[in-house]
Amino acid sequence: MKPIEECTIGIAGMGLMGGAIALALRNRCGVMRNNLLACDIDRNALTLAEEAGIAQGWTGGAGEMLARCDVVFLCLGPAALLQFLDEWEHSFKPGALVTDIAGVKESIAARAEKLRPDIEFIPGHPMAGAEGGGFAAAARCNFQGKNYILTPLTRNRPENLLFLKDLIQRMGFGRITETSPADHDRKIAFTSQLCHVIAASLIDCEADINIARFGGGSFEDFTRIAMLNAPMWAELFTVNRKTLLERINQFENSLGEIKALIRDGKTAEMEQRLTRVRERRTALDELNNI
Amino acid sequence: MKPIEECTIGIAGMGLMGGAIALALRNRCGVMRNNLLACDIDRNALTLAEEAGIAQGWTGGAGEMLARCDVVFLCLGPAALLQFLDEWEHSFKPGALVTDIAGVKESIAARAEKLRPDIEFIPGHPMAGAEGGGFAAAARCNFQGKNYILTPLTRNRPENLLFLKDLIQRMGFGRITETSPADHDRKIAFTSQLCHVIAASLIDCEADINIARFGGGSFEDFTRIAMLNAPMWAELFTVNRKTLLERINQFENSLGEIKALIRDGKTAEMEQRLTRVRERRTALDELNNI
Repeated sequence: MKPIEECTIGIAGMGLMGGAIALALRNRCGVMRNNLLACDIDRNALTLAEEAGIAQGWTGGAGEMLARCDVVFLCLGPAALLQFLDEWEHSFKPGALVTDIAGVKESIAARAEKLRPDIEFIPGHPMAGAEGGGFAAAARCNFQGKNYILTPLTRNRPENLLFLKDLIQRMGFGRITETSPADHDRKIAFTSQLCHVIAASLIDCEADINIARFGGGSFEDFTRIAMLNAPMWAELFTVNRKTLLERINQFENSLGEIKALIRDGKTAEMEQRLTRVRERRTALDELNNI
Repeated sequence: MKPIEECTIGIAGMGLMGGAIALALRNRCGVMRNNLLACDIDRNALTLAEEAGIAQGWTGGAGEMLARCDVVFLCLGPAALLQFLDEWEHSFKPGALVTDIAGVKESIAARAEKLRPDIEFIPGHPMAGAEGGGFAAAARCNFQGKNYILTPLTRNRPENLLFLKDLIQRMGFGRITETSPADHDRKIAFTSQLCHVIAASLIDCEADINIARFGGGSFEDFTRIAMLNAPMWAELFTVNRKTLLERINQFENSLGEIKALIRDGKTAEMEQRLTRVRERRTALDELNNI
């Protein structure tokens, strides 16, 4: 693969993450505007990206764009991504390095295994969203030091994986973790989907917005992710349903046990349990700072 | 009441909030070190506060300190506070303005109603904690723009309430809300205690700290409050048990309904529900910015 500055790069889907990746490629990786093509079924998103000077909106059909691109970021939700691959698989440039950003990986990786052998698809998941959605929210994404997960296919060539990892780091991300699609989906169900389900349930269960006068900062931080992209999360919850339901059950069990300690007034046991929680969460922070 | 700069101020309990209030009085309200007295059963906390130059550690017994103070902040947990009032009620200076910071208000306000008539006790709750606990964490508290709740007694004199509210604003707080102790405890059970129960349950239910590699920022924000002061929260959960259990049930109901939508693959209904959640949480932010 030639240096990224010399590649033609395509972004399919100029939403929150597509926009944020385009910004990072332009601002941090030396990619020129003329080398960065973007397509989207929403012409307005392309106009916004053009006006911001970060990409050339491609209005000639995805197929023509893909035929020119050495590197492609598919920034679509799972169902749209699978449909996109079915429709445009024949259009990718031979040898193209392709990656995606979908929040579930099992179905994507399974489809990627069956792609044309001359397409190098490396499934990925940048762990750096922001509340809201759409291109207008892209500038709120901060990649600096964030986690990035890759679930490489056995057929991926090591040099292409290295190229992508280097690019990810140049975009600002911190730790890159390689794992299996199933492991990704199980862990993400916990750290991402379950947290969104909980925050949504918390806001769902209280209609009085005057409750805001009683927030101390942690409530606001806690529920910020409830300002979510509803169609995207409804889809992710559905696609990863089986694993997510296991995670919800796991959480409900702990919540039920803690509730029982409160109900039964077992303050000493509660204190022990909360001490263990505090230690575990502190260890997690320390792991993150390494 | 004379101007705060001329008052002798006492702080009983030089922990996280006592320390943060002392810092705010010194740095933002023009209170001199010599006018700020602190007592604590932990001599080490007093030494730290003295070394930081923010207060004079009072080692001659709480009674002697109280006898000198025009204004007193009682920065103790609910049980310690009730015990402190029983032990030292006779020692307060006649006419002293006294307030507290305890996270529950019904039991405190009930006790305050029975105090000597020449003690002006105005129950309060600064909504500005920080993870961790103890004086060493005090500097992490940020009062700027935060909420402060007061549950005045019917016997409180308007001019004293105004004095305290002015002082609270000078310490940096934003909105001050006056309400009944019962309303405070019901709302705080939601915005504060329930969030801590949930964050603790989430960390409790997953032992694998490598999960940190899969965090995208929201997980870390979401669970930061799990680094909690275990004895304090165990006590608050127990004291406010009845209301907190109602709040947990309320949350469990919403979680159960959302779980059913996921289980049954009702993606469209889920999207509708998440859209309502998003709108409600956004309205809450807008209310906060007013």
